[in-house]
Amino acid sequence: MSFKLIILGCNSAIPTIKKNPIAQLLNADERFFLIDCGEGTQIQLLKNKIKAQRIDHIFISHLHGDHYFGLIGLINTMHLQGRTKELNLYAHKQLKEIIDLQFTVSNTELRFPLFFHPIPKDKQKVLFEDGKIMISNLILKHSIPSSGFLFLEKNKKRNILKEKIKKYNIPINRIENIKLGEEFITNSGKVIQNSELTTISDSLHSYAFCSDTEYVEENTKKIKDVTLLYHEVTFMKELQGKAKKTGHSTTIDAATIAKKARVKKLLIGHFSKRYKNLNKILEETKSIFPNSILASDGMLIDFNFI
Amino acid sequence: MSFKLIILGCNSAIPTIKKNPIAQLLNADERFFLIDCGEGTQIQLLKNKIKAQRIDHIFISHLHGDHYFGLIGLINTMHLQGRTKELNLYAHKQLKEIIDLQFTVSNTELRFPLFFHPIPKDKQKVLFEDGKIMISNLILKHSIPSSGFLFLEKNKKRNILKEKIKKYNIPINRIENIKLGEEFITNSGKVIQNSELTTISDSLHSYAFCSDTEYVEENTKKIKDVTLLYHEVTFMKELQGKAKKTGHSTTIDAATIAKKARVKKLLIGHFSKRYKNLNKILEETKSIFPNSILASDGMLIDFNFI
Repeated sequence: MSFKLIILGCNSAIPTIKKNPIAQLLNADERFFLIDCGEGTQIQLLKNKIKAQRIDHIFISHLHGDHYFGLIGLINTMHLQGRTKELNLYAHKQLKEIIDLQFTVSNTELRFPLFFHPIPKDKQKVLFEDGKIMISNLILKHSIPSSGFLFLEKNKKRNILKEKIKKYNIPINRIENIKLGEEFITNSGKVIQNSELTTISDSLHSYAFCSDTEYVEENTKKIKDVTLLYHEVTFMKELQGKAKKTGHSTTIDAATIAKKARVKKLLIGHFSKRYKNLNKILEETKSIFPNSILASDGMLIDFNFI
Repeated sequence: MSFKLIILGCNSAIPTIKKNPIAQLLNADERFFLIDCGEGTQIQLLKNKIKAQRIDHIFISHLHGDHYFGLIGLINTMHLQGRTKELNLYAHKQLKEIIDLQFTVSNTELRFPLFFHPIPKDKQKVLFEDGKIMISNLILKHSIPSSGFLFLEKNKKRNILKEKIKKYNIPINRIENIKLGEEFITNSGKVIQNSELTTISDSLHSYAFCSDTEYVEENTKKIKDVTLLYHEVTFMKELQGKAKKTGHSTTIDAATIAKKARVKKLLIGHFSKRYKNLNKILEETKSIFPNSILASDGMLIDFNFI
């Protein structure tokens, strides 16, 4: 299925005219998942021609402002535009209090159900799952509780083996069901298991989002082999001490996780504003993990081309 | 003194790519007063080349999101940029709770004193005063408590009468003090009162900000003769019923207030997004009060040229 990521903002804490605070949109088979929601995200959605009302699930990594100050405005706009369908919000529990307080003070009664799903601080958990995707949190390490998110495509059709079609004389109208996992019964009544007829498709997409966090060794196993890893890189390696102290990562931290997890591609963002030349950050990251790229606002990544 | 207003945003509730939610900056003798702070105000300040750290006083009219959702981000940026000087915030009391909660959750201890000054709901009060300016609230009428703001320039030098200089043989080095209000003692010891020597300058600037509100007759006296009145116009006159019901004003409401208060100029904004042709709004307003103009993002109004 289609699996695309749009970077709406990738700056660290202080926004600039050209760089917005953190927000990403994952389009998985035309379902829209919003990851973080810094100030101005609703405008970034407009600029990228994405209808806010198509978003049904919002994931907030942690409660530092650059990751959620745009959320209340986005929800308010959804309300004013007449939304009636439910919205699901996955975040650390205090966010509910922050939102409830602001809507109480403004005397706003939302026209749609807003379901709040608290993310556990220290336990990995499936946050959302249906027939096509499974989304769970990752435990990060930051100055306040922080969660990453792991998006795994599932249940994709299997590849049917051509020689088996011939061998068992499988009619065309059975092929789609076999790709979806069914067994096949021959004319003589013999049951052929699906595992003999098909192989797993190797193009299942997966995405891991890790921000804000310092280096967490355990996550290398949890995000093993993902198609794309977004990892924060706030500092270059000479500021390793500062990174550790503030709960952030360096180029080396992010690249090491990508290498150990054997991800296909590494996307980095959340750079400290002290760095004017981002190519140096990229070079340092590539010295450990060559298939790395810099995030930028408006960037579109199609997982079918990774 | 210099007295300038910069419109940072003038849209009604839902922001668009080109139109930002409400925020204005009054520059009174190079002191910066921020009025309302919709989402994205910090970016609007950057675009207008205004250093956020120069703002020491922020006035929030009411707690609907389009008037304050950008405040927490602006304060957070001031903190991250190392501000140490105090910031004064004038707003309805629940805003303190909203800000405190968000900084508590993010474990942020501001590096500068943030003084919160609650605005009374139903009483006019001087909120800030020094030798050059007096700022008080206006009582508006909206769906939740809402305040306007009245900025009065004060203590400006008086005009000295040339014939009195001649008559009493006033030396040049006394003139500045007499302009500031001093009396004059002649060589023979006679005291000449300042009121005999000078007249009030007729160029004292004043600014009234009224948003969001329905028509409030009492305010025509309180804002009498102001140089510039900003008044919200959410609807045209055919939607008078809707305006009343939602606590907003029409073109006719705003123009009538301007006319009765004999203001020099009327500035209108906060238009409902249903209106694509703003000239019709302006024409309808001008039919009652000809010296009216439409607000637009980035507009600069110099009070010396009104």
